[in-house]
Amino acid sequence: MVSDDFRFQVLPMSVTQLGKHISSEFQEELEDVRSRVLAMGGLVEQQVKDALESLTTANAELADQVILNDIRVNSMEVAIDEECSRILALRQPAAGDLRLVISIIKTITDLERIGDEAERIARMARKLSSSDHLPSGVAEVDHLGEKAIDELNAALDCFARLDADSALEAARKDIKVDREYESLIRQCITFMMEDPRSVRRVLDVMWCAKALERVGDHAQNISEYVIYLVKGKDIRHISLDDVAEQLSGE
Amino acid sequence: MVSDDFRFQVLPMSVTQLGKHISSEFQEELEDVRSRVLAMGGLVEQQVKDALESLTTANAELADQVILNDIRVNSMEVAIDEECSRILALRQPAAGDLRLVISIIKTITDLERIGDEAERIARMARKLSSSDHLPSGVAEVDHLGEKAIDELNAALDCFARLDADSALEAARKDIKVDREYESLIRQCITFMMEDPRSVRRVLDVMWCAKALERVGDHAQNISEYVIYLVKGKDIRHISLDDVAEQLSGE
Repeated sequence: MVSDDFRFQVLPMSVTQLGKHISSEFQEELEDVRSRVLAMGGLVEQQVKDALESLTTANAELADQVILNDIRVNSMEVAIDEECSRILALRQPAAGDLRLVISIIKTITDLERIGDEAERIARMARKLSSSDHLPSGVAEVDHLGEKAIDELNAALDCFARLDADSALEAARKDIKVDREYESLIRQCITFMMEDPRSVRRVLDVMWCAKALERVGDHAQNISEYVIYLVKGKDIRHISLDDVAEQLSGE
Repeated sequence: MVSDDFRFQVLPMSVTQLGKHISSEFQEELEDVRSRVLAMGGLVEQQVKDALESLTTANAELADQVILNDIRVNSMEVAIDEECSRILALRQPAAGDLRLVISIIKTITDLERIGDEAERIARMARKLSSSDHLPSGVAEVDHLGEKAIDELNAALDCFARLDADSALEAARKDIKVDREYESLIRQCITFMMEDPRSVRRVLDVMWCAKALERVGDHAQNISEYVIYLVKGKDIRHISLDDVAEQLSGE
């Protein structure tokens, strides 16, 4: 028998020691994957911010950077996804650990799609940057964007702290984003009716608004996964008021 | 000891027999959850069809039915999701079985969002049904809708047959949907510029087109999960031509 084989080195360890050893290694793996989700979240949030800035300042260079960076977002998603599959196959997590892995698989899907929305905005920004002046509605989109970024930031913050109550507050922020979006669309319709020659350009602004509204939807999903993760409750498709009642009744 | 305790009844069985017993029960569970995904897919496809019909025939009653039915779609998603968590926790699936469960978790998220798009179209249909005549562009939306439904149908079919080659073909259908969508948007812009009073109504048609384009995106995701499931390869973010080359090179 070969004495320096790893399996033989760990043999003298008691089962309890081995159990602890595996368990702490496993906890480290979970922590590691969780921190990678946060890094991905940070990048995605920056992408939305940069996309919005490239739009409002007609900065084609920044827009190009956002478009290029989306590859990084995508590869982060694939890598974290693979790590989650590996953990499920080898560690066979249960209860809270299993919920964490499932939540991460879902969260990164939404983060990746937020990344896609940022890229979409950047493409519009690049297109619009080549014309003389920014179309009507861009200032309003900036305002909507700030609200959507605030919602996303709150969702990621709850995920970092695993705080279900704050997650409920974060999910509620989507109501404001939706309201802002509706009002922006009404304004854009007015712009288009008043000046039909502006239709094409105002429409591009509307697509950016739509993308930001979607960012809010995805951020809301992330907040809901945090509640599922912490409380073990699937609260999708339930009104947020009912969720608040359920959480406070515990 | 109590003789009619279930645990004692299975004790005389050999380990191999027990293993087979558990394994075939497990296979039945997997088959059951897979057929539930297909049932959900069937319902969602019908929802898109009905939503489209309610739009093109200005049928408010049918639109209401679609809106109501979305609750069924949502509860199917939650139930299948719970079943997947249960399987992961209790059966600790590996390799292909694990990929199946992960693919299902992802697939039902996309199916649920297709359901949301159907509901969105139905709400527009109900709004538009109250006016005298349908706005310009509805016939074109019908055409786009047929292409999106065809793509979704092909994706679900591949999932049912676990056929990676057909899944690649199904994913390619999204290119046509996107092209049709782009051309429709250009037409709608012309309609709005020619008759600014129609802006609001043509915009509603455009939102329906956008929803159908999203249906296509979600269907493409489902086809990609089938390839991952069958081949064990994550092909998202890779061009479909490269995927075809990889698959044919095996």
